[in-house]
Amino acid sequence: MRARPAVGVRTMRVHLTEHDARRLLVPGPLTLVTTRWRAAENVMPAAWTTPLSAIPPLVGVCVHPSRHTHDMIRFSEEFALNIPSPRLLNHAAYFGSVSGREVDKLDLSKLPTFRARRIDAPLLEGCVGWIECGLEDAIRLGDHTLFVGRVVAVQAEDTAYNEVWLLDDPEERPLHYLGGTWYAALERRLEARPPAQATPEYARELEERAREMEERAAEERAEREERGE
Amino acid sequence: MRARPAVGVRTMRVHLTEHDARRLLVPGPLTLVTTRWRAAENVMPAAWTTPLSAIPPLVGVCVHPSRHTHDMIRFSEEFALNIPSPRLLNHAAYFGSVSGREVDKLDLSKLPTFRARRIDAPLLEGCVGWIECGLEDAIRLGDHTLFVGRVVAVQAEDTAYNEVWLLDDPEERPLHYLGGTWYAALERRLEARPPAQATPEYARELEERAREMEERAAEERAEREERGE
Repeated sequence: MRARPAVGVRTMRVHLTEHDARRLLVPGPLTLVTTRWRAAENVMPAAWTTPLSAIPPLVGVCVHPSRHTHDMIRFSEEFALNIPSPRLLNHAAYFGSVSGREVDKLDLSKLPTFRARRIDAPLLEGCVGWIECGLEDAIRLGDHTLFVGRVVAVQAEDTAYNEVWLLDDPEERPLHYLGGTWYAALERRLEARPPAQATPEYARELEERAREMEERAAEERAEREERGE
Repeated sequence: MRARPAVGVRTMRVHLTEHDARRLLVPGPLTLVTTRWRAAENVMPAAWTTPLSAIPPLVGVCVHPSRHTHDMIRFSEEFALNIPSPRLLNHAAYFGSVSGREVDKLDLSKLPTFRARRIDAPLLEGCVGWIECGLEDAIRLGDHTLFVGRVVAVQAEDTAYNEVWLLDDPEERPLHYLGGTWYAALERRLEARPPAQATPEYARELEERAREMEERAAEERAEREERGE
């Protein structure tokens, strides 16, 4: 059984600004791209995404032209990036394995959806963040198309995200894709010592770390030479 | 003190194919972009990256035109994406806080470098993966430039990566950027049940998960209605 929030600790979707889209995407989570064109809806996993611009807020998602979602974005000129939590691990793999041309994946999966705020594509329950986009541009690069989306609405679970991903609850984190059938989630937040507060101690630590790495690199070089590489 | 590999368990950089670049980038790690133009070298953190194409192997990195690295890539027409481990947490924050126009960040940081295989930009020790690129295209999108890199060489630490990121050793994982001074690393690999092996049990579990989420969504809707939202 998955952990559920304690009684009284309900998660809640909160409306964010368009600028939060880049914070949601910056650590590189997997996304589930939802689309709607006339009566048809579709969903496909996409890990090749990135923020593209702060002002205006633009995000990019790469889709292979053979994918049904490619046509759906072309025709509807909008799409949503749903950021799944680890609860959707198996759904994510399933959505990537069958084509929306052959089956209605959303219907088959029985995954509940809810209405987006600004676009017609459905949004998915079980996710921790949602980015609604209007299509701004489509650029063919190699064998994929980069769809450039203008962010028009952003939401996130308040237990999962507050200016940055919180990573407190194992079930309320974004899922990342590794390749094949492998996925992972971020462990916990690490804080870098802000260089604005740089102190002699900080400088010494940077040097110490650098020295350690130099020593290790030298040892490895010596070993490689011994092996005649 | 950081954990070091046990005696005799040396990490080793291995040469990979150009196609491994997309597996290195797919979970969305932070990268440190290194460049070299004539005698000058520079480094800057970039989290807005994505694979763009499988064949040919293309990757993208977004850089603001005000950044020194923007000129360095324009002039040299090449760059390397170094994927730092958590060992470089403070370095990553430092590299993002000062401009290479004012100081020689690599020299100041004392971070050891080594020669790339196919390009002139230096590669950084303390990283777990390295992607060398020739500049294929530069596309202005909003307030950033998307540099499209043709992958020409790829390396990774064999203890960190073998077809996918292994995530076994806490120090030999890619670092991800969350925003502000916050970073994180992926916890451990999760395997999705491959739909090719779909069984009645698998279908039941998908339904069970969906039912749980539907119940929870219904409870939340009811609570919102009670609160008069």
